[in-house]
Order: sequence, then C-alpha cells, then structure tokens
Amino acid sequence: MVTAVSTDTAAEAAGAAYAPTERTVPSRARERAHYDRETVHSILDAAYLCHLGFVRDGAPVVLPTLYARVGERLYLHGSTGSRPMLAAGRPDPGLPVCVTVTHVDGLVLAKSAFHHSINYRSVVAHGTAYQVTDEAEARMALDALVDAVVAGRSADSRPANAKELAATAVIRLDLEQVSAKIRTGGVNDEPEDLALPHWSGVVPVARTYGTPEPSEGQDPAVALPDYLTEL
Amino acid sequence: MVTAVSTDTAAEAAGAAYAPTERTVPSRARERAHYDRETVHSILDAAYLCHLGFVRDGAPVVLPTLYARVGERLYLHGSTGSRPMLAAGRPDPGLPVCVTVTHVDGLVLAKSAFHHSINYRSVVAHGTAYQVTDEAEARMALDALVDAVVAGRSADSRPANAKELAATAVIRLDLEQVSAKIRTGGVNDEPEDLALPHWSGVVPVARTYGTPEPSEGQDPAVALPDYLTEL
Repeated sequence: MVTAVSTDTAAEAAGAAYAPTERTVPSRARERAHYDRETVHSILDAAYLCHLGFVRDGAPVVLPTLYARVGERLYLHGSTGSRPMLAAGRPDPGLPVCVTVTHVDGLVLAKSAFHHSINYRSVVAHGTAYQVTDEAEARMALDALVDAVVAGRSADSRPANAKELAATAVIRLDLEQVSAKIRTGGVNDEPEDLALPHWSGVVPVARTYGTPEPSEGQDPAVALPDYLTEL
Repeated sequence: MVTAVSTDTAAEAAGAAYAPTERTVPSRARERAHYDRETVHSILDAAYLCHLGFVRDGAPVVLPTLYARVGERLYLHGSTGSRPMLAAGRPDPGLPVCVTVTHVDGLVLAKSAFHHSINYRSVVAHGTAYQVTDEAEARMALDALVDAVVAGRSADSRPANAKELAATAVIRLDLEQVSAKIRTGGVNDEPEDLALPHWSGVVPVARTYGTPEPSEGQDPAVALPDYLTEL
C-alpha cells in the first residue's frame, strides 16, 4: 500500500531541488525558472485551483479543477464518471497529465507594447496520474482538498459517507518533473523609450475575499468560524 | 488573406449559440454548460490569462499565457522560439490546442465536505491554432492583447517596431468548439445535514488591483492615465 507519508524522502526533507529535465526546462526566459522545493511548494500551497491537462483522442484537454499538495504529491478529485478520472483509473498505464497552477501578481505596463508583461508565479508538473484506491489515502486527500481551499475547514464539516466516497474519484500525481516560473519586479523599458509620454509601471493584482454570506435559513447560533474571519 | 473581420458572420451577429459537439458536452454537471455566444464572450472578455494546452511528444503540456478575443477568434502570442509557437507555425496541420479560461467567484462551504464547491465561470475552446502570417492581422492582435489586460492601453504605448514584431509569434484559434461552464449561487446542503453545527455559506472571491507603482525615475509630469484609475 502506498501512502502519502512514504513520499517524505530524505531528499525532500533536505529541501533538495527537483532535477531539471528536458521537459521542465523552458524554451525561453530560463532565468525565470526555479526548481527548488521551497519555491515550488509555496506557489502550490498558495492556490487551490489548477488547470489539469490530458490527452483525449489525440487532442489536448484543459480543465479547471481543485487540487491539494501533500508532501511530494498532488491530489485532484472528481466524479467517478468524469473522463480524466475514468482514464486515470485504468491500472496501467494511468493518465499522462500536466498540472499547472498560476498566480497573477501584477500588470507590467511598459512604455512599449512589446515590453508589457505580467508578474506571475506558476508551477507546471508533468507526470502520470493514478487513481487512489486505498480508502485511508483517499480520505486524507479529500480532507487536504477541503483544507487547500480554506485551511482548517475539513475538521469543521461532515466527512464523506460511504455513498459520497464511492461517488468521488481521487487521483494523485507524484511531484517529480516539476518547475516553477516567476516574473517579478518592475518594467524593462528600453533606454530609448524612457522619454516617451506613456505612463510606465506596475499595477499590483491580488485575490481578495468578500464578506461571507451564510446559507439562507441557517441557525443564527452558528457563528462565523475564525478561519473565515482570518481569510 | 484572412482577417478577423471576416469571422463576423451573420450567425454571430444574430447571437446564435455554438453548436454543442461530442467534445464540448461535459461528461457531468451538464446543467452548468452554456453555449450561447453572449455568455462565452463575456467570460472570455473578463480575463486576459488563459491556460493553453497542447500535446508534445504524446504528453499534455499546459502553460499560462495571455490571450485576447477579437470577434470569433482568440489570439495568443509568444516568442517565435517558444515550443507552441513553433509548432503552430507549421503550415499544415497547425497545432491542436485547448484554451481554457477560469474565473473563481466564490468558495462554497457546505455542512458536508462532499458538497464543498467553487463558484466559477470557465470557457473551454478546442481547435487547431495557426500562426498569423499577415502583418496587419498580427498588429491588430498585439493591440488586442495589450487592451485585454488594460482597456485603452494599446493607444497609449509605443507600437512594436520591426525587430520586436519579428521576435513575436501570434497564433489564432477560431471559436467553434467552445463551451462555458458556470457554477453560481448558494450551498446545496443535504436536508439531513442542515442541523449540523458547521457554518455553511459562500465566501465571495474577487480579483482586485492595488495602487499603481510608477517606474523608478519616471518623469513626474507623466500622469497616471484615467484607464488605470478606473481599474
């Protein structure tokens, strides 16, 4: 039985970097690529929505879906009837996937159209996804998926019952062929453009949370939990 | 010569829906799928970052990149040396792609872990991308790409010169096999869960912009443009 704990290897504990491979070295802007675990994990842990890519009938498919990182694995879930879950459920060879996570941090507005850019942090993970068949690992992953959206939430909700568990497929991807890419900082204007009359600079972009809206008819005695007021 | 204008067909003007195909009908939650142009366009026009999927050596690759919609086409750009741009530059057969755009609008926290969800709007476009070889179309697309990030910005920046244009590849994808998927509204708690003590409701999520940070050393006489104060 494979469990998430078994992926906490000595290499990971030591914070060793992911080995760059032909697949994870970008064809351009290589100075923006990062392979150290700390950077990759921090980008992954700051989000909960990824874009899952797989191949169907020879063509690419990209779907938004939730994920959670546990140690050196990503977990994703879906209906047992969904296409990628079915494909990943084949015992051999699993489902080749690409999982990409992107944060937009700023709009980089240069004097020239050409030097316009985005400040961002992204992680791209390649590999083969397999369905999780061990119930304990699946339950752990489902908790992690809820906690990835709101830390502390899994302990404050009813766990899946047998019927719900049977309707949910969980897949996992080992973090092996992984890289981060980061663009940060200011504008790279050309020296000869500096005198142009166009405003140049960076507009910060952030994700913000609004006031939580309780479900209609909810018992008013149910207080807003601390983990939501701290979002 | 193909121009973007030629795609403004009578069907589009009439607001006809995209025809659902085997590829664009989701395998689950079909009630969330939408095919009308107004819905699809509004989701596409509210973002500027997509996740581009393509197949490389038989495996999926998903990369974040900017895009712009012009009529019934999406335009994406990149370095002429980047992998998808090179692949799309082959005159035949182009590059099979999947372009996915996702907005997260809310965290849906149910009494049960199982009914946790995300309020979102997404568009998935399948098709074959081709490199734009006509210079006028490429320039129009590059303006649209800048304006997708900040409306009105392309007119307030220096256009690409010949060298910059030569270094930039533009690819286009006709909007034909397209669908939107939307989850909105409140929590779908099970009736038997309503009395549970866990808070249930929706936390709105929004993208916000911070105070624009002008480039260092910029002439203070260059005022912050109106299109940025209105962001």
